[in-house]
Amino acid sequence: MTPTDIPSGRSAAVPTPVPGDPRLARLSLNQKTVDSLGVADAIALCVTAGLRSIGLWREPVRAFGVVETAKLVADAGLRVSSLCRGGFFTSADEEHWAAALADNKRAIEEAATLGADCLVLVAGGLPPGSRDLPSARGRVAEAIGRLVPFARAHRVRLALEPMHPIYTADRGVCATLAEALDLAEHFPVQDVGVVVDSFHVWWDPQLAEQVHRAGDRIAGVQLADWITPLPPDALLSRGMLGDGHIDLRGFIELTGHAGYRGDVEVEIFNADVWSADPHEVVATIRRRYVQHVA
Amino acid sequence: MTPTDIPSGRSAAVPTPVPGDPRLARLSLNQKTVDSLGVADAIALCVTAGLRSIGLWREPVRAFGVVETAKLVADAGLRVSSLCRGGFFTSADEEHWAAALADNKRAIEEAATLGADCLVLVAGGLPPGSRDLPSARGRVAEAIGRLVPFARAHRVRLALEPMHPIYTADRGVCATLAEALDLAEHFPVQDVGVVVDSFHVWWDPQLAEQVHRAGDRIAGVQLADWITPLPPDALLSRGMLGDGHIDLRGFIELTGHAGYRGDVEVEIFNADVWSADPHEVVATIRRRYVQHVA
Repeated sequence: MTPTDIPSGRSAAVPTPVPGDPRLARLSLNQKTVDSLGVADAIALCVTAGLRSIGLWREPVRAFGVVETAKLVADAGLRVSSLCRGGFFTSADEEHWAAALADNKRAIEEAATLGADCLVLVAGGLPPGSRDLPSARGRVAEAIGRLVPFARAHRVRLALEPMHPIYTADRGVCATLAEALDLAEHFPVQDVGVVVDSFHVWWDPQLAEQVHRAGDRIAGVQLADWITPLPPDALLSRGMLGDGHIDLRGFIELTGHAGYRGDVEVEIFNADVWSADPHEVVATIRRRYVQHVA
Repeated sequence: MTPTDIPSGRSAAVPTPVPGDPRLARLSLNQKTVDSLGVADAIALCVTAGLRSIGLWREPVRAFGVVETAKLVADAGLRVSSLCRGGFFTSADEEHWAAALADNKRAIEEAATLGADCLVLVAGGLPPGSRDLPSARGRVAEAIGRLVPFARAHRVRLALEPMHPIYTADRGVCATLAEALDLAEHFPVQDVGVVVDSFHVWWDPQLAEQVHRAGDRIAGVQLADWITPLPPDALLSRGMLGDGHIDLRGFIELTGHAGYRGDVEVEIFNADVWSADPHEVVATIRRRYVQHVA
């Protein structure tokens, strides 16, 4: 584990916190940040780095086995801060709609097996050829209503994630925290919450007001930075903590003032981060987290 | 002028409207859409295409001469739907701040000379190294307050343009129509309005509500489409009308219900559009405008 940095020139003098450093108590690694690793290696990496929590993704979990992953996580003494992800509710086609609901029920079962704090839901984009954003948003509301009883029976909390408006067309029609809360507030707070990711919401003029409003609805918090120039692939445009323009400490303080005390996942979709040595990535995250967040 | 299309497969059967077609009465060409042309050629292109209005940019106007441009526009019988652009108010540095105010006063004088319907203001991004978004937003409010008396004396209407959150960090900290209206409403409606560009605001869950609220504050309307996958250069990511995901007709209807009867500028920053024959681009716009907007 070499504590090299993704260069920013600002953190050279900051030592990497040792495992057990109390400032890392809430830091969780979303496994997408180390996309090249399977579940077992990602869990082992968290343990080596002294992290107490991991955010899991369905595809690698299913590849390894859901029950097997749950056992590995438990044996490692890790919390599962979230399972990513359900959602993609916007199809206008009956067959796809039914398939989406069925797949989300499987995701709920998986989250229950894993003991995940929440199941992250991404709304989904506009259906192919459609320009009807209000209707797509309506289908998201309807789908959540259909899933809540099933989720409640499995004691899984659904967590709707507002996505940056760069993704409204093709990934997530739920574009603001206010919109996510408008949806969530139709349901009991223990059944439906929201995930607040700095990358997705940092620009919002209503951020402070809406995080305050969210309060106990905050089911999860994720961090990535907004970097410029924006990388050419919009999906992989998230930056390492401290490399960009977001006041990450201020963001976490907002969630704290709203009452959130849970895990803070670092989730970075970025080709450079994905091609780096995962141990170095996690060393950088630990150092940057102390420098910019904790 | 060959009426070829930027391929979408949908509009092959739509004839290009002839000059004088009443459906084109409000269509204005923002000269940035034909970025390779100087002022004189852009004006001539509008005349040839039967357009009645043009949106001008300061740099080419100054290269040709402000007074000379005003004369050419008047001789051509065109309206100037807007002058782009002033703004960039967010510097934390006194010297840059003073220079920005001085430059905006020149822009106001130019808009007055041109008889432009409004001067478009882009807020500006975060200052280098800053993560303090609230402060940057505060400077925008302060700058507008400083410019209003000068603009009023020149009978120029300032028009604040909310920009898509993809640009919050590096171009425009004013990210929503609600935020722009919060700023504008400190001033008389004839002094400070807003520009509503489909590309920048289409994703906003509050769009209908805020366009309604805007009412007489709407000083200008611009159109570009949101296309996916997003082109690699974020600045050049705007699409030809009809190539993307925006309900352009619904958008224009919203502005109409809010009382806007003015020009509708087509402003497309896109490398493919910029490298195409400007006459073909304008033919495509006329056809797509009738198909998707008018």
